[in-house]
This record gives sequence, C-alpha cells and structure tokens, in this order.
Amino acid sequence: MPKMNIDGERLWSSLMELARIGATPKGGVRRVTLTPADREGRELFARWCREAGLELRVDAIGNMFARRHGIEDGAPPVMMGSHLDTQPNGGKFDGAYGVMAGLEVIRTLNQAGAKTRAPLEVAAWTNEEGSRFVPTLMGSGVFAGVYPLQQILENRDTDGITVKDALDGIGYRGDARPHKVGAYFEAHIEQGPVLEDTKTTIGVVQGALGQRWFDVLVTGQDAHAGPTPMNLRRDALLAAAQLTLEVNRIAGTFPDNARGTVGHLQVKPNSRNVVPGEVRMTVDLRNARDSTLLSMKSELEKTAQAIARERRVSIELKEVVYFPPSEFAPALVERVRAAAQDLGLSHRDIVSGAAHDAVYLCRVAPTAMIFVPCEGGISHNEIESASPADLAAGCNVLLQAVLHTAGTAAP
Amino acid sequence: MPKMNIDGERLWSSLMELARIGATPKGGVRRVTLTPADREGRELFARWCREAGLELRVDAIGNMFARRHGIEDGAPPVMMGSHLDTQPNGGKFDGAYGVMAGLEVIRTLNQAGAKTRAPLEVAAWTNEEGSRFVPTLMGSGVFAGVYPLQQILENRDTDGITVKDALDGIGYRGDARPHKVGAYFEAHIEQGPVLEDTKTTIGVVQGALGQRWFDVLVTGQDAHAGPTPMNLRRDALLAAAQLTLEVNRIAGTFPDNARGTVGHLQVKPNSRNVVPGEVRMTVDLRNARDSTLLSMKSELEKTAQAIARERRVSIELKEVVYFPPSEFAPALVERVRAAAQDLGLSHRDIVSGAAHDAVYLCRVAPTAMIFVPCEGGISHNEIESASPADLAAGCNVLLQAVLHTAGTAAP
Repeated sequence: MPKMNIDGERLWSSLMELARIGATPKGGVRRVTLTPADREGRELFARWCREAGLELRVDAIGNMFARRHGIEDGAPPVMMGSHLDTQPNGGKFDGAYGVMAGLEVIRTLNQAGAKTRAPLEVAAWTNEEGSRFVPTLMGSGVFAGVYPLQQILENRDTDGITVKDALDGIGYRGDARPHKVGAYFEAHIEQGPVLEDTKTTIGVVQGALGQRWFDVLVTGQDAHAGPTPMNLRRDALLAAAQLTLEVNRIAGTFPDNARGTVGHLQVKPNSRNVVPGEVRMTVDLRNARDSTLLSMKSELEKTAQAIARERRVSIELKEVVYFPPSEFAPALVERVRAAAQDLGLSHRDIVSGAAHDAVYLCRVAPTAMIFVPCEGGISHNEIESASPADLAAGCNVLLQAVLHTAGTAAP
Repeated sequence: MPKMNIDGERLWSSLMELARIGATPKGGVRRVTLTPADREGRELFARWCREAGLELRVDAIGNMFARRHGIEDGAPPVMMGSHLDTQPNGGKFDGAYGVMAGLEVIRTLNQAGAKTRAPLEVAAWTNEEGSRFVPTLMGSGVFAGVYPLQQILENRDTDGITVKDALDGIGYRGDARPHKVGAYFEAHIEQGPVLEDTKTTIGVVQGALGQRWFDVLVTGQDAHAGPTPMNLRRDALLAAAQLTLEVNRIAGTFPDNARGTVGHLQVKPNSRNVVPGEVRMTVDLRNARDSTLLSMKSELEKTAQAIARERRVSIELKEVVYFPPSEFAPALVERVRAAAQDLGLSHRDIVSGAAHDAVYLCRVAPTAMIFVPCEGGISHNEIESASPADLAAGCNVLLQAVLHTAGTAAP
C-alpha cells in the first residue's frame, strides 16, 4: 500500500465547523456535557460518521462508538478517540482534536480505498471535563469499569438534574454494552508548554502522572495587626505561605517528573489590618512513579508538622484524591515514536501531567497518546490555540500508528 | 483633699447598661456609627451627663462634649474621652470604656464635692471605627483639623447616605465650634496581648506606631498544574508566599516596635489544579519611628523586586495609607506612670499599635493614654472581654492623672 497522508485542510475545517457549536464571542467554545450544545456537537459528529460509512452505537453512559469494518471483523477494534464536551469557557481543540483526528484517519482510508485487518473505531467519551457533573473522565471511567454505571447515572449537577435525565434529555442514553478494545490511541493538544518550549512537533506520551490532592486547614489566631507584637502572633497565613514554598521545594527535589502546586488559598478574616487566624488551601502533588509520589506525600506531612510547631498553629492535611500513575503500552508508544521518526517529525518522550480518557482506557486495553503543541501551553481557556500544521502532523502519526496496529490487507 | 477612689461597680454597671444597646446574641455589641443604636447610646450618655450636672454641647460632626465647670472656668479644659460607636460585630469595651471612665471620674468628683482648677470635659468622638463611613477617627480628625468638615459631611456609606444626612437622621449635627483643649487623656483596652502576657495591669502609652499600607498586585501566568513543569511556571502565589515571609522577616529585623502583616490575599483563578496567575494582597508596616518605618518601606520594595526577578512575575506595590508615628506628651505620660506607681499597680511602657482618637488629639493638645488588659488580646470581636478590677484600676489612674493636670482647689 503506498504511504497515505491525511488531509490537513479537511481536518482543520472539521475542527472549525465543530467549534461553531457553542462558540463564544472571545473565540472559545462552551459545549458543556449533556447540554443542547453537546447534543448538537454529537449530532454533527454522528452525521459525519454516517457519511463516512461508519456504524454508530451509543452505550448507557452516552459514549459514542463509530465503527469501520475490518477484514477480520471479529477482531477487537483499534480505537481512536477523545471527547466532544468542553469546559464552560473552553477552547476549540481540547478533546475535539482527538475525535476529529480519528474521523480524519477514517476519511483518509476511505478515500484511498484501504482496508485494515482489525476493525477501527472512533470513540467520543461522555463528560471528560467534569465541569457539570462529577467525576471527570466519566464516560471512559464507566466504560473501563472504574465507576459503577447505576451510581454514576444518579449523580446530579448543581441544578439537581441527574446524569440519567440529562442523557435522556439529549437522547443519548444508548444500549451498547462495553466491548473489548484491541488498542486505543488518543491524539490531544499537550495543554502544557514543553513541546512549544523545546520546538518539538510530536510528544510521544509515556503515561500520565499520578496525583495526590490534599485539602489543608491552617488554624492560628486572629489578632489586630497593630497591637500584636510579632512574637505573640499565631499567623495562619504566614504558616500557609511557608507551606506553599515547601510544596514548591518538594516538587523541585524529587525525581520522576515531580510537580507540586498550591492553586487555591482562602484567608480568614482576610482584612488588611488583621493577622489571619485561618487559611484553607489545597495541595496538588504529581509524579510519574507511585513510590516517589508516596515519598512526596510523607515529606509534605512531615514539613507541615514542622511548620505548625514553628508557627504555633495547627495544620490539618486531608487527602481527597488519589489517582495512581498510568503507564502506557510500550509497544504502542514505540509505534507512535517510530511513526514520528518515519515522517521526519521532531519528537520527544513526554509524560502527561493531566488525566485524559486514555488513563482509564489503559486499564482495559493497550493504550498510547500523541501530543501536539498548543500555543503558550494554554488550555481550558477561550484563547486555546494550535496550528493547522501541528494538528495535521499529529494526525499523520495517528494514521501510521493505527495502520501498523490494525494491520493492512495483504497486497 | 483626701485620696479619692472611683467606684468600680458603678463603672462596670454603666458599661453593662450601655452594652445592652445594640447587644448581639453572642454577647457583643453592634452599635455602628450614626445608626439608631448609636443614637440610643448617645442619648443614654447624654442623660447620665445631665444627671451628673454636666453641660452638653455637640459639634458639626456630632462629637459630644460634656463639661464640668472649673474654678478657673476660662482655662482650657482637661478632656477625657473615646468613642461610643462599635464595629459591626464589636465588643462591650472598645471605645465605651474611655467614655464611661471619664464619666466615672466626674461622678467620683461630684460625690466627693471636689472642685478642679481647670474645667473637665468628657468627649465622645463620632465614628472612630470607620466601618460604615470612611475615614476612621472621623470625629477626632475633624476636631483636630486633619479632615475638612465640609468634605467629610459628603462622604457616603455603601447605601449612598451622606454623613450629613446620617447626622441629621439621628439629630446629632450640632453647632459647637472646635475649642482649645488643655490636655487629653484616653483610657482604652489594649486590644493586644502584651499586658496580659506580662501580667501587667496598666499600660503607660508612649505614643502610637506609624503606619504604611500597601496594595500589592502580583502578575504571573495561569497554567495547568499537571502539564506545566516547575521550571516553566510563573506562579504568582509562590511569589506572594515569598513576599509574605519577607514582610515577616522585615518586621523581625528592624528595631522600634516594627510590625509587618499580610492580612488580605486573593488568588486568581483560585482553582486547585491551576497554577495561580494573579494574586492581590496587602502589606501593613508599622513602626514607632518615622525614619525606621521609611527604611522598612525601602526594604520591602527592594525585596519585592528581587522576588519578581527570581519568580519571573511582576510585583506592583502601591502605598495607599501613610500615617506618621505619634509621640504623646512626656509630662502627661509621666503623670500616668506616676499615678500607677502611686496606686501600687503593676505597669509598663507600651506603644499603641493601633490608632485611637488620641493620635489626632495629640496634634492639638498634650495627650496621653492609659491601657488596661483585655482577655487574649482580642478586640473587634463579640467575645472582647476585660475584668472589672482592671477597668477600675485604669479609671483610678485616669482620675489621679486628671486631678494632677487640672489642679485641685487650694484647701
């Protein structure tokens, strides 16, 4: 079979047409899960799938699977996908790219009249973002058996609407049963600055960082800023500031892509001339290795207790999320690397700092991801941007990796 | 004249009766300036003044002056006072104590039939707290010529009501002109922990700390906490945390009762998995010496710029309040010290960390203050508490210092 190339313009124009659904004045997209905009997005995707000759099924959590028959049609499919829902003020590429790239691979094969041994599927997972209904990665989590379907269907949004009613409301509560997946590839914008910073086109994703999230309560004593000498204070913000710097130190000290972030901090009473008596803050620790992540947690706990003693405050740490690191399938990762190499694209190994549907899929199928750069590393933002050339390059890598995995017809 | 003693029970019962006006369920007082509760408090005070034979005048900003004639009635009066307004969730003693202690001195003299050479006055200053109308210390500031009357009368609360209309609303816009004051004594709870911590009954107040207040804007760049490696971040909260610790270091390094506080801090976007792009915070620097306070400011500015460079963020510092240190009249301060000594009360020199009406009065008259302990140093709080014995002790010191200053009748 001669080497095929995807049609970068067709991919771009599909992304732009999809981005009109839920378009915001600032150039972003608001296509929150299970809303009318989400339905409209799903229906455009479904129409394109039918036009491409694909067979569409929807499962009980609203995940969509568009299937292209293979020569050995009983073989488990090679799946490509991502999600169509966005953040309330999201961009055009987060999620949409992985679905549209999968569709573009299918269109390219159709145009060439190429057949694959294993069937192919394009998946659009329900509610990856988690901004309306918790948890994030809902559809892929249910598919992978991480979350029990019946329980998830009863989750409610802030208006009290259940997932089940919202699915029925847009007509996307289907009856497809979970099925075996031969391999899963997800193309995605990086949502981080590394590829751009290193002038690299393709990120060969090794896996995803594990995460441990903490809620922290620092309790000291409110006091007048004027009459209270420094040595008699029990300043909760001072302790919180010290802990914030220590979280940064811990992330800088440990190996294996360690990250540490204090993203949320709330001061009480938060008045300019009152020594703060209470601070609520969060800590987000990430690492590629589970054992290193656990060491970071121990170090955080030890440091917090030392600060509490020094500042005469109490510090309570409560772990609220634990998400183990994911390691993608080495053989598939190697296919992504080889495809990039073969296509003459600059590439580098990278670990995903964020979770994607792929981290649940990798629990039930060999999985790999392909990252492409996004401008300034900015995502979850209306100004999210990626270049047509990079998106096309990632899609070509996807095509080659999928063909290699699904197998092509004998000549 | 035999040594007189004030009546501690009468003082306490007046404080408790006054505290019923605006009493909150948690034992505090909500008697915000120029509200119906403030009027009711003023009217109780006025009735008590009339019952004590005092002549009451009200000036154009609502300050109340209750006068007891002296033997040399043309001499400038020796004034005692403080304020009757409270914070929205204030306590029973802040302000009220200084006014009731002045009244108790008068009642004691009346009971003994004692006359003073100079006339005496008890003053109740309008809107010391500044919680409804800015600025704080409004009444004493206008009296001392710090604020122009006409301008202040036009200041509005958050409902758009002017000071003038609020004064008219409670019937307290009077016509007394500012007058010369021979000496001013203000008794007050410490509102800090030093006296309690050192088991001291009387604080001999030397003056008040100068203050420089800053608004600070730290601008970095929002980023995903997961995908953004530590070395590519521009974390505004990390810079703010470092600045918070530096403010504490500066206050610990400089002499002359240096204090430094970050009381307010607001993070944007304040989401647990987003590296913060912006922080707005405040810095409150205080010192007893103007030159040292200025050095602290320079050090703060230098430090902020160093942090901005290190963290690749911008830090804007804007000074929003400058209030020079106040030095009380050495002769009057000595009379307070001598009275405490003479009465066998434990005492120590102290500098007021907060501003009081006395800091404006000291610009137009020799001034001193007397501090008594409050429980845990807590004030501006419904649980504000002080002991009857300490309040009585402070009032006896006030009586002796006032008698010494006003002069007593020759035998």
